[in-house]
Amino acid sequence: MKYSTCVSIADKSPRIMLERLSEALKHSQYAELRLDYIGISQIEPLLEAASGYLDRTVCTLRPAGEGGMYEGGEGDRVRMLETISEYGPFLLDVEYSVASTKNVTGQMGCDIMVSWHDFGGTPNPDALAQQMERMAAHSDMVKIATMAKSPADAASVMALYARAPCTLVAFAMGDVGRFTRLCALRMGSPFMYAHMGRAVAPGQYSVFEVRQIEEEGII
Amino acid sequence: MKYSTCVSIADKSPRIMLERLSEALKHSQYAELRLDYIGISQIEPLLEAASGYLDRTVCTLRPAGEGGMYEGGEGDRVRMLETISEYGPFLLDVEYSVASTKNVTGQMGCDIMVSWHDFGGTPNPDALAQQMERMAAHSDMVKIATMAKSPADAASVMALYARAPCTLVAFAMGDVGRFTRLCALRMGSPFMYAHMGRAVAPGQYSVFEVRQIEEEGII
Repeated sequence: MKYSTCVSIADKSPRIMLERLSEALKHSQYAELRLDYIGISQIEPLLEAASGYLDRTVCTLRPAGEGGMYEGGEGDRVRMLETISEYGPFLLDVEYSVASTKNVTGQMGCDIMVSWHDFGGTPNPDALAQQMERMAAHSDMVKIATMAKSPADAASVMALYARAPCTLVAFAMGDVGRFTRLCALRMGSPFMYAHMGRAVAPGQYSVFEVRQIEEEGII
Repeated sequence: MKYSTCVSIADKSPRIMLERLSEALKHSQYAELRLDYIGISQIEPLLEAASGYLDRTVCTLRPAGEGGMYEGGEGDRVRMLETISEYGPFLLDVEYSVASTKNVTGQMGCDIMVSWHDFGGTPNPDALAQQMERMAAHSDMVKIATMAKSPADAASVMALYARAPCTLVAFAMGDVGRFTRLCALRMGSPFMYAHMGRAVAPGQYSVFEVRQIEEEGII
């Protein structure tokens, strides 16, 4: 498998999350546990049960303000991120809003990926590049996902790969930018978020589509 | 057919060129006649014979210095470009080296596309964007094709679509940039150069591959 995928797993039931994680890692190099979908008290028991899979798992605890389901306070969320990091997942997704204000990235017990999402649109190319530079100051792995409303928006996101000072997972969300998820793999993104049945973010491909594209040598 | 293709036709025999043009336009919206492949005295007879196809034909007379087969003088080449334009093709491809120095673009009898190729590599993103701006001063349709040696090179070419002041046909040549030929269609390029049997430029897709990709809704 040349194209690495990361299956986003999001469910309110920890039991179902665990089942899907186990299944996803049969078909995908990586999976993402969206821990914001479950209750905060359920997180540690799930990580214990999933310990055999964590070396290929990205852990995410996305707050409501950034498109996630976590509705608690930021202080509690940051403490929980630190706790999650101690379980040693492949990567911990830490929002730029946290990384830039709380200087927490050095305190984490695992590698972190600093992330930033804009579900409302895509900044102009210069602003987007500046955002990438600011993020790269906090981690050598950066995720940027913005909503593309036009082909030019999609191009602005792709342009980041021409100047990336770090490992970059950048793509445009939505139908108009869907192709950027594939292109990102050809421009250096170490993996692509994908689904196994139900897209968690707008425009996601399924793991099986990615395999077909790879087998046919299309892109 | 959502994705428009332009089949590059290049052969030393005008008869074969005409046969292939006729066949190509059954499967492709556009075709490109590489008139530099035939003798200069054979060009007008071919254009006469191809008159029924010229409204969907890009005419190109590429000099040796830009990857073509035409080895005559530049003065003769420019005069022949003017002659070709009088046959009223869909587009006349005029190299930036000509457009920028001889101010010929206003003299042509048809729409022109100003082109620039770099078979040796890809300039940095700023230099490439400046080149696009200079070219756009001569035509509202610009073609830029550079050889990508890295994913970052491919990204530099894709970045042009974020700021294009004109209709843009820009893609990266070579295997590492092959995917940009497809992406260009999603970022506003009006067509994609393709082949029907034998690639004329490094990385070209076949028309039939493009149709399959389109039917499968992959990108």
